[in-house]
Amino acid sequence: MAVRVGIAGVSGYAGVELLRILAAHPGVEIVALAAGGAAGLPLDEIWPGWTGRLDLPVEELQAEALGDRCDAVFLGLPHGVSAKVVPGILAQGAAVIDLGADFRLRDPAVYAAAYGLAHPCPELLPEAVYALPELNRARLPGALLLACPGCFPTATAIAALPLVEAGLADMVVSDCLSGVSGAGRKASPRNLYCEVQESAVAYGLAGTHRHTPEMEQELGVPVVFTPHLVPMVRGMIATVKVRLLRKVDAATLQAMYADRYADHLAVIVRDGPPASGDVRGTAAAHVHVALDAVRGVVTATCAIDNLCKGAAGQAVHAFNLAFGLPETQGLPLFPVLP
Amino acid sequence: MAVRVGIAGVSGYAGVELLRILAAHPGVEIVALAAGGAAGLPLDEIWPGWTGRLDLPVEELQAEALGDRCDAVFLGLPHGVSAKVVPGILAQGAAVIDLGADFRLRDPAVYAAAYGLAHPCPELLPEAVYALPELNRARLPGALLLACPGCFPTATAIAALPLVEAGLADMVVSDCLSGVSGAGRKASPRNLYCEVQESAVAYGLAGTHRHTPEMEQELGVPVVFTPHLVPMVRGMIATVKVRLLRKVDAATLQAMYADRYADHLAVIVRDGPPASGDVRGTAAAHVHVALDAVRGVVTATCAIDNLCKGAAGQAVHAFNLAFGLPETQGLPLFPVLP
Amino acid sequence: MAVRVGIAGVSGYAGVELLRILAAHPGVEIVALAAGGAAGLPLDEIWPGWTGRLDLPVEELQAEALGDRCDAVFLGLPHGVSAKVVPGILAQGAAVIDLGADFRLRDPAVYAAAYGLAHPCPELLPEAVYALPELNRARLPGALLLACPGCFPTATAIAALPLVEAGLADMVVSDCLSGVSGAGRKASPRNLYCEVQESAVAYGLAGTHRHTPEMEQELGVPVVFTPHLVPMVRGMIATVKVRLLRKVDAATLQAMYADRYADHLAVIVRDGPPASGDVRGTAAAHVHVALDAVRGVVTATCAIDNLCKGAAGQAVHAFNLAFGLPETQGLPLFPVLP
Amino acid sequence: MAVRVGIAGVSGYAGVELLRILAAHPGVEIVALAAGGAAGLPLDEIWPGWTGRLDLPVEELQAEALGDRCDAVFLGLPHGVSAKVVPGILAQGAAVIDLGADFRLRDPAVYAAAYGLAHPCPELLPEAVYALPELNRARLPGALLLACPGCFPTATAIAALPLVEAGLADMVVSDCLSGVSGAGRKASPRNLYCEVQESAVAYGLAGTHRHTPEMEQELGVPVVFTPHLVPMVRGMIATVKVRLLRKVDAATLQAMYADRYADHLAVIVRDGPPASGDVRGTAAAHVHVALDAVRGVVTATCAIDNLCKGAAGQAVHAFNLAFGLPETQGLPLFPVLP
Repeated sequence: MAVRVGIAGVSGYAGVELLRILAAHPGVEIVALAAGGAAGLPLDEIWPGWTGRLDLPVEELQAEALGDRCDAVFLGLPHGVSAKVVPGILAQGAAVIDLGADFRLRDPAVYAAAYGLAHPCPELLPEAVYALPELNRARLPGALLLACPGCFPTATAIAALPLVEAGLADMVVSDCLSGVSGAGRKASPRNLYCEVQESAVAYGLAGTHRHTPEMEQELGVPVVFTPHLVPMVRGMIATVKVRLLRKVDAATLQAMYADRYADHLAVIVRDGPPASGDVRGTAAAHVHVALDAVRGVVTATCAIDNLCKGAAGQAVHAFNLAFGLPETQGLPLFPVLP
Repeated sequence: MAVRVGIAGVSGYAGVELLRILAAHPGVEIVALAAGGAAGLPLDEIWPGWTGRLDLPVEELQAEALGDRCDAVFLGLPHGVSAKVVPGILAQGAAVIDLGADFRLRDPAVYAAAYGLAHPCPELLPEAVYALPELNRARLPGALLLACPGCFPTATAIAALPLVEAGLADMVVSDCLSGVSGAGRKASPRNLYCEVQESAVAYGLAGTHRHTPEMEQELGVPVVFTPHLVPMVRGMIATVKVRLLRKVDAATLQAMYADRYADHLAVIVRDGPPASGDVRGTAAAHVHVALDAVRGVVTATCAIDNLCKGAAGQAVHAFNLAFGLPETQGLPLFPVLP
Repeated sequence: MAVRVGIAGVSGYAGVELLRILAAHPGVEIVALAAGGAAGLPLDEIWPGWTGRLDLPVEELQAEALGDRCDAVFLGLPHGVSAKVVPGILAQGAAVIDLGADFRLRDPAVYAAAYGLAHPCPELLPEAVYALPELNRARLPGALLLACPGCFPTATAIAALPLVEAGLADMVVSDCLSGVSGAGRKASPRNLYCEVQESAVAYGLAGTHRHTPEMEQELGVPVVFTPHLVPMVRGMIATVKVRLLRKVDAATLQAMYADRYADHLAVIVRDGPPASGDVRGTAAAHVHVALDAVRGVVTATCAIDNLCKGAAGQAVHAFNLAFGLPETQGLPLFPVLP
Repeated sequence: MAVRVGIAGVSGYAGVELLRILAAHPGVEIVALAAGGAAGLPLDEIWPGWTGRLDLPVEELQAEALGDRCDAVFLGLPHGVSAKVVPGILAQGAAVIDLGADFRLRDPAVYAAAYGLAHPCPELLPEAVYALPELNRARLPGALLLACPGCFPTATAIAALPLVEAGLADMVVSDCLSGVSGAGRKASPRNLYCEVQESAVAYGLAGTHRHTPEMEQELGVPVVFTPHLVPMVRGMIATVKVRLLRKVDAATLQAMYADRYADHLAVIVRDGPPASGDVRGTAAAHVHVALDAVRGVVTATCAIDNLCKGAAGQAVHAFNLAFGLPETQGLPLFPVLP
């Protein structure tokens, strides 16, 4: 019997990516759509591309009403908003798969510092599972509150985990390149086509980006993180540099990565550096590791689709694990090329 | 039991789009891949994005060997090449779904004029079905040689058919905008990123484009066709202008389009002009019609994904009909947004 | 002695293109900048790329203050706004070069129908010169109110004029492709990067676009005009189709175009269809004509940079003529390639 | 009297950017154009955008013939080719401004290791001036052999120099994002529009990129350099991370950068991170520095146009200094926005 799911935040980019994946997922039935400002509009006005494909209203976001009809509710909502509706959804017995930031940080003080507001329901933080399958697969079955990682932490963690777990790094320098969809669908002058096209920029410099504490929490070492915005819609590259604490040869490094991810179907270890276009539209991560023996530095790069592996696809992956569905059921793993 | 299919030309853009669709199609099993110059290379060298996802060799293109193992062979090959292998495939009892140009034109003299070579097997032309589902759905079941329409004729026909069938037009003026993937994967200076990006151009002017005779064959009226190349990978817009032979009002026009496509799941009639991004990654066409009563002109626009509805997706659609599978089985109809 | 100029609307795309051209123009001195909502902000906050390059405040838009200090004021303002400030500027003895729509249409009733408001100063319309140098060069010297053409009418007129002037056309079908900068710098959801990138769309269908009356006024025949938005920042292609009223051969056509523009330095008649990228950053138009003798149709294409030849560059060109400066002084004619 | 200049390699992207700048430079006269494979073609076949703008043949590359007619010859040639023609040009008394790699590295052994060939004329290396104006302005007047820096070293050096010169760094980690024009105009499958668009990738990992030794030569510390290709034609961002050897506060850092570049008109120190689009089409560099006091790391970012400040524009800047022309004469410093 299909799992009944709802999508809150369907007017956003992560929301419509959830829609694409879940509408084609053989193990689920979408029973409810909700949004904030766009509530009440027909779906085909919000997303003309969906005209004639799904006959569901876009409701106002009401926790109990959603939780009541769904077995699982996916949330693609701004930080601060998720935390307000999660208790009500859980109270109805439905699971929550939160793509937002509200349940990623275990320490409410860190949350408050990063997001500038007191956490609305800190008592739920211990129940949340940080839903990176490559890190917490064992903790996901049966979990009711899934805190899906951000796109930058996902790509950085997959690139850095083998090095950190092997004790080779006391600091991770991560430069990430992100497509513009990561900035959301807000009508801000900064996101206008003519401001973004043919231009690249670094931002959130010097530890000021909100994803830094999330990375440091999961990796356990200081992270010097610099995000860059590049003119593409989807896609992300994380390039992680680590000054090695001890010598290691290239073959050992390669084997470390191959072993670390052998059991993880979403991660492919490549011989050369992956392009973000290689994983377009998929819930997969491609990773590569290279040794600079002269300077004692390892460079590991990870390519993901920020909206899929970095958001909606990874959320469905974790949901599959939580609900005991086949791990890759309904998961887009075949890339949209070119 | 799954239909056994092969893909010839998997190193091209239409070929890899076939791969994406057919690998996820629940009614088929991909049993063979073939290519021209890329034969013998591992699939993940041709398409790094497919690393770890499909374990099949890329063989040399041999008609009998393909026809022998397959129930259906999809051909994404240059014109002239398809015609050479089709007889051998058919001789083994396999069906052919040809995405190329060799079997679209019924008159070998027109073919010779358009493509500059004598047709290699004109005796097969009468057996070919022009595989536009919106035109020839009834003729597809059981067909063995499917000639899939070009992308420009697909978009132009869907926009123009209701007008032409109603006898409203004695000439169709079609201006089409195409993504660059339509030019194929050849390493030509014209297709370099820096030559194409931030630039648009008309080409194939004054009736010289090879798709003009195909359009005129199917529409039955002269077509003034101007293709334009615009800086995007996928997507196509056809804007069809018709000087009305008799008066018609807007409501009648709208009803004509709604009725014409009511039964065709791949076509959505929209209230406003569709963007090509609305149908990205899908086998769908969105169409809109507008009346300029002052000048006595109708403008109909159709948006498709040139690689999907304009090539691989439509081929799978026609294949489903030919093989008696559910019409939309395995067909990507949910768009990749944004 | 340098002509003292002001730029009103410097926070917009046409405004900053004026800034680029006029700041490098050896015959002018920029003495004033003005803007609407952005007034009072430092120029380098509005345009960080201008940091350290020009030390002028961005003032509120006050007609008399501008007219008083300037010999000429360039207006890159929304329609309706220009008309309010033009009388005050003229009253101070300064010339006005208006890039907006307010003085292009000679008939105030047509203006009211197209723009939805009564013209604020219809008494000035007879004084305005439609500042297309290729049409009205003789009328420009000494002119005080220059109404610069829109980008679509510029490209369409340059493509169509030789045909219309020769009496070969009773209707012009113009399909234009425009870069996104033509939509201005408004933070509208429609102009967001992720909505525009990798997508093309037709709009303003069936005679509803405001540039149609302007084209018909200048060409004197009905114009079936369809604008398309394509994913690039700058650039425009007009593809004009004309059903010939009498036969003409290709050589005659080519000579007609060559003769028509022999004396116009901004227009280059090309042997093949021009790409918009060929004229990037320039005040030039490239044009090509092709004959389809079979269908009795001529297709003429014109490529311009919508912000330069289609706006700021053409404005400076007309200003040079009006003020008796060398025609191409300060005019960008060397393209930014690639 | 105008300096007579020649451009060798005019068919390449750096070559045509030289053409744009030098054709508008009031202090020079272009007297010769040369190319490799494109020699003999009309300029407007190589660059249709130049149709009608410059009446010069594109000659075969002959050192003596060029040197004889020119006071200065700009070379936009592949490495290995420059070194073969430089002696012949110098022998005629002309200066050489080499945009290629042949004279950047002082040590021929380092050159041989990086470029895989023995240096053709190592005896000239001591005469070459590394033509980064911000480093070697004093050495440029009168110089006859100018070795223009690569784009990556230019951006990295401008970001890192103040930190390195202050002794704050024992290693520089530089991640650079480059537009695709840096890869040149070769018809390689890797540079096709559909392979590059909507995709980002890191490459030349682990110290294997040829620009690493050039950076280490000029900065004097190990450089961990990772280039990234991003989907834009022009533009470059260098993001330099340095683990501070001693504490420094933010105000001191800011003052260090302001002082270091106060006298350099091409460099603008900004309050926030610059976008590459801010400097599009200019010979300027925008730079920003940020302190992460928690992790003891400084992040400095520099934005340039890889073809202008990173190639042709900087070459003209250095040429001006070498020939005693006004430093910014003919230099594009006003950005092409948007």
